[in-house]
Amino acid sequence: MNNLIRKFLTLDSSSISDALDSFKISGGLLGIKPLVPGLKCAGFAYTVKYEPIHDPTEFQNAGNYIDRVPEDAIIVIDNGDRNDCTTWGGILTEVALQKKINGTIIHGSARDVATIREKQYPIFSSSVFMQSAKNRARKVAENITVYIKHVKVEPGDLIFCDDNGCVAIPAHLALEVAERAGNVLETENKIIQAIKNGMPLEEARNKYGYSKPWEKEPII
Amino acid sequence: MNNLIRKFLTLDSSSISDALDSFKISGGLLGIKPLVPGLKCAGFAYTVKYEPIHDPTEFQNAGNYIDRVPEDAIIVIDNGDRNDCTTWGGILTEVALQKKINGTIIHGSARDVATIREKQYPIFSSSVFMQSAKNRARKVAENITVYIKHVKVEPGDLIFCDDNGCVAIPAHLALEVAERAGNVLETENKIIQAIKNGMPLEEARNKYGYSKPWEKEPII
Amino acid sequence: MNNLIRKFLTLDSSSISDALDSFKISGGLLGIKPLVPGLKCAGFAYTVKYEPIHDPTEFQNAGNYIDRVPEDAIIVIDNGDRNDCTTWGGILTEVALQKKINGTIIHGSARDVATIREKQYPIFSSSVFMQSAKNRARKVAENITVYIKHVKVEPGDLIFCDDNGCVAIPAHLALEVAERAGNVLETENKIIQAIKNGMPLEEARNKYGYSKPWEKEPII
Repeated sequence: MNNLIRKFLTLDSSSISDALDSFKISGGLLGIKPLVPGLKCAGFAYTVKYEPIHDPTEFQNAGNYIDRVPEDAIIVIDNGDRNDCTTWGGILTEVALQKKINGTIIHGSARDVATIREKQYPIFSSSVFMQSAKNRARKVAENITVYIKHVKVEPGDLIFCDDNGCVAIPAHLALEVAERAGNVLETENKIIQAIKNGMPLEEARNKYGYSKPWEKEPII
Repeated sequence: MNNLIRKFLTLDSSSISDALDSFKISGGLLGIKPLVPGLKCAGFAYTVKYEPIHDPTEFQNAGNYIDRVPEDAIIVIDNGDRNDCTTWGGILTEVALQKKINGTIIHGSARDVATIREKQYPIFSSSVFMQSAKNRARKVAENITVYIKHVKVEPGDLIFCDDNGCVAIPAHLALEVAERAGNVLETENKIIQAIKNGMPLEEARNKYGYSKPWEKEPII
Repeated sequence: MNNLIRKFLTLDSSSISDALDSFKISGGLLGIKPLVPGLKCAGFAYTVKYEPIHDPTEFQNAGNYIDRVPEDAIIVIDNGDRNDCTTWGGILTEVALQKKINGTIIHGSARDVATIREKQYPIFSSSVFMQSAKNRARKVAENITVYIKHVKVEPGDLIFCDDNGCVAIPAHLALEVAERAGNVLETENKIIQAIKNGMPLEEARNKYGYSKPWEKEPII
């Protein structure tokens, strides 16, 4: 596994989002929720875009792109937030596990929850529904820029997901975001220790520089 | 328990929905989610329809219909997707268990989640809320045609629910849908085995006839 | 712990809501869901109101009000149902536990789900999201009247939450509501016992006065 990804896996989505905030970037993907609680994943975005079809004249084998997805990817599927058909299920989960793909985000629905839960594969989606996208949607592009609500995701962006949801980090900032997020966690841990020792929150936050928690040596 | 129901319980909502797709029927009930994870149920629809009341002059004892519901039924309650009052709770759950009713779908809210979870009774609803429907809604009909979003459910239709949600299968197609869904599962299992043995997805799908997975001997 | 709160903790949200109904009051808070399943909490409302900020010129340290919140409070945060930024996370959870605050309701988002689940602190929110409210919202008032959808919550109102959601009980009715809710539970337990002994629901409900279950000696 890539070292940058390994670094991200020591963090959480809150500290990563706070670090992004220090760059004035909002990377949280609204409405995308974990299918399996308690999992964390990080990887490089491999984007896939679907569009609705209404009068299919032939079968649409939309999922075969996965044969081209590299190790350490997070697949980011933009199915336009559709809740009436699914672009992910048990078979793709099995392929993803075989190929060491790190997780999947779906702006839309997933199915085969029971299998996915059993395999503990990290999936984050807008909804769950059992109707196949076959003959309801078709893949129009892969490895292009997609938008999840107002957030731009480009191929190769760093994606991080945990129980709070998913964050997209622009590729060129990923390393610096990871460092600042690490500092955020350190600052917060100091505040939590102080609170456990009975210090009021306001005092603890002032003492440990909570206004700029991403700085290594916070200015007070 | 009825043999057809027993057959359905060997399936899942994905394969059943795919089998319905082969008849060009969409039977998935949008927005109806499991209250208790990990449960599956199947049975014959016993429909109940509620409507709002705004100025109740007398008590509406809306739940007593359950005394007439037969064994192996799935109760399908249409409360117009209302999230502000519930038509199902702990008492009805207890009656349903006593009467060997197989499950309940509510296009609306349920309450008494803790009890229902403890009893592991299969309930699938649009939402959860504690305010009683008593004096907020009244039962207007039972054993009539209802619509859950755009899906028609008629009394006696086969209903199947699992962690992905609920599917309504027209009564006259139920047996054939079960057979085709069984074939879908067999086809998918072959594909999954091939994937585990290292075959690319595209090849596996072509080999095992994924474009028409509901056929016993898929044409390649 | 306060005796009234202790009394409420023997009840559930369904019986409390039914007791409120007997006063023709709807106190259920729509769309507020448990973050951690299986928890119950009760306490006196300490309200906090946020409003959006769009062009922050300085850091907003919005959470420090917690230093003033007394034991046995339930913090009720009105962030206008915003799902794009959070006013609660791991640090505030730690402070709340230290200060014996009984729980938190958020009309808006919470973050740090994994920590909160581990600590088993009762949080009920409209949504979950990781983006901080810092620089997105600011605290405008505390201990004032707030509205969660159409329900008025005043400082000192009794708040009760369980797996079905949250109910606000006007302070001056709290004791009587608790008593009536206790009667509701007793009535329901008698009905459930009768059902287990094979009595039809209609008969059981008539026998035990289900139309006015909050009365100690129901009139039949």
